[in-house]
Amino acid sequence: MPELRRDPVVGRWVIIATERSRRPSDFTAAPRPRKGGPCAFCGGQERQTPEEVWALRPGRGEPNGPGWQLRVVPNKFPALRIEGELEPTGEGLYDRMNGVGAHEVVIESPDHDAVIERLPVPHLAEVFRAYRDRIVDLAKDPRLEYVMVFKNHGDLAGASLEHTHSQLIATPVVPLMVEEELTGALQYLRIRKRCIWCDIIRQERQEGGRLIADEGGFVALAPFAPRFPFETWVLPAVHRSRYEETPLADFTALAAVVGRVLQRMTGFLEDPPYNFMLHSGPLRSPSLDHFHWHLEIIPKLTRVAGFEWGTGFFINPTPPEEAAKYLRDDGAESAVS
Amino acid sequence: MPELRRDPVVGRWVIIATERSRRPSDFTAAPRPRKGGPCAFCGGQERQTPEEVWALRPGRGEPNGPGWQLRVVPNKFPALRIEGELEPTGEGLYDRMNGVGAHEVVIESPDHDAVIERLPVPHLAEVFRAYRDRIVDLAKDPRLEYVMVFKNHGDLAGASLEHTHSQLIATPVVPLMVEEELTGALQYLRIRKRCIWCDIIRQERQEGGRLIADEGGFVALAPFAPRFPFETWVLPAVHRSRYEETPLADFTALAAVVGRVLQRMTGFLEDPPYNFMLHSGPLRSPSLDHFHWHLEIIPKLTRVAGFEWGTGFFINPTPPEEAAKYLRDDGAESAVS
Repeated sequence: MPELRRDPVVGRWVIIATERSRRPSDFTAAPRPRKGGPCAFCGGQERQTPEEVWALRPGRGEPNGPGWQLRVVPNKFPALRIEGELEPTGEGLYDRMNGVGAHEVVIESPDHDAVIERLPVPHLAEVFRAYRDRIVDLAKDPRLEYVMVFKNHGDLAGASLEHTHSQLIATPVVPLMVEEELTGALQYLRIRKRCIWCDIIRQERQEGGRLIADEGGFVALAPFAPRFPFETWVLPAVHRSRYEETPLADFTALAAVVGRVLQRMTGFLEDPPYNFMLHSGPLRSPSLDHFHWHLEIIPKLTRVAGFEWGTGFFINPTPPEEAAKYLRDDGAESAVS
Repeated sequence: MPELRRDPVVGRWVIIATERSRRPSDFTAAPRPRKGGPCAFCGGQERQTPEEVWALRPGRGEPNGPGWQLRVVPNKFPALRIEGELEPTGEGLYDRMNGVGAHEVVIESPDHDAVIERLPVPHLAEVFRAYRDRIVDLAKDPRLEYVMVFKNHGDLAGASLEHTHSQLIATPVVPLMVEEELTGALQYLRIRKRCIWCDIIRQERQEGGRLIADEGGFVALAPFAPRFPFETWVLPAVHRSRYEETPLADFTALAAVVGRVLQRMTGFLEDPPYNFMLHSGPLRSPSLDHFHWHLEIIPKLTRVAGFEWGTGFFINPTPPEEAAKYLRDDGAESAVS
């Protein structure tokens, strides 16, 4: 059973794998060469994964058989496990609990060589719908407090399998980073009576220099203080705190905006490693006036080094105003000037 | 002039390089091959660096000439610059100020192929004394609030030059991560009237399973909730909030402990990339009852991926109790069992 441990000073939680503990010789710094298919995520290999919990089969077909467009399966090597009780225990200064949670994989295509940004918009819209459906289902488990949806693309961004996929990890506590956003945003609401992200959208629309896209009810922008070069946030233009409350019809517009941002990013940065992370309100919160869900996309072009790990400061060699020029649809021309 | 920008939601500061902005084509994901010397940090190449601000020349010799054992020079490409005023300005929701600060490089040896953990203990003790001397000197500048000392070793840990060196960055604000430690530790002091790190040392000495070294007034331990496999903290056994108040005589014992931890780490992990970061009290604080300086050493064996960036949770595949077995001096035998 993995274990959740809490740092007693800053309150950060860490998942410690106690079962399959890795010894020094298990670590390798060498980059993984591209393997090619077929792999366990490919069409026709369905028996190699745990049984699916969600799937899209436009031509029907049996569960756990071929014919699917999208599949969600439990992670074969989960960071947290669905069985058991939390059993929080103290040990002097320290707190620990059982690593209870869920860890699922969204296989975004049966094709080993597919890349998410080249999927047709209706297909990508179904990926975003799958996230929603899984969050709604996982929320039924009262032990879970949060679901983080994320994608790792490329070896340096932490992807251990090359077949295109994203992941959901459901945790029994609200993560520290989400808590920090909630705290900062609540403070803002108390003083100004407004959602801080709604105000960010308003200001970015007025100034324009960091705006990347604004259409179909979604805004993409380069944030004012980005940690990473070409970091991009995508938000619904209207206030909405929980991703899972997105009307089904809106996922097409979301897919169109995210798909185009990723297309431009992978184009001019030549297939960079990247992560994206969905920040939504906690499962047990009602709709919140101060939280606004958003998708953060971070290409991994710079190394995170001692200064960043020690301070929480980030050094970003590309101003967001420059990044936005490249990321906008008309960016090819304006960026050269 | 670089610019400091503040994220309006979580209060994180980011340094934006506005002068030498990097375009997409400036980024490369390819690992850098080892170059070999001589480089600008080598003995005999002193004219290639900015003029030194501190040096150790056991055989005397002229400043900025050869014959040195240790040299501290301003960074030629500083993240923050010493000239100018902060001029904090608002822009609607956002805050920015000029990137005023200092950025120095501690060249730990004139030998291109030296590695810090193989330096003789008295030499390494001088490295730790140089950190102290530079902090004391930088503290005289009233614009500066904090000095972060850190080391990046290896390409994947963010080292852009292979010649052994560490760095100091002095910032005009106390970094968020140090603020978080200060806040957590103050809360602990208020309730329990004790320093949390003193209590950690006490508990680790009693339990023993995460203790790595305990001698000469310094303790090395694998923290209870480490972010990274083989993460190690080194602390003074007696309470001391500011690194620069360390008695000169103690640096030998510190060098002996840190040197041996790094020797074991680089040995069984086969020269892993790593960072270390010195967490000391803020420059403008008096001695604090709730803060205890410490050195954090983090080998970079795992990828930080979307889950970590989105949640602040870390997944660590090696329990600290296992890591400590390897890192202890008698570790070779016990780890195999």
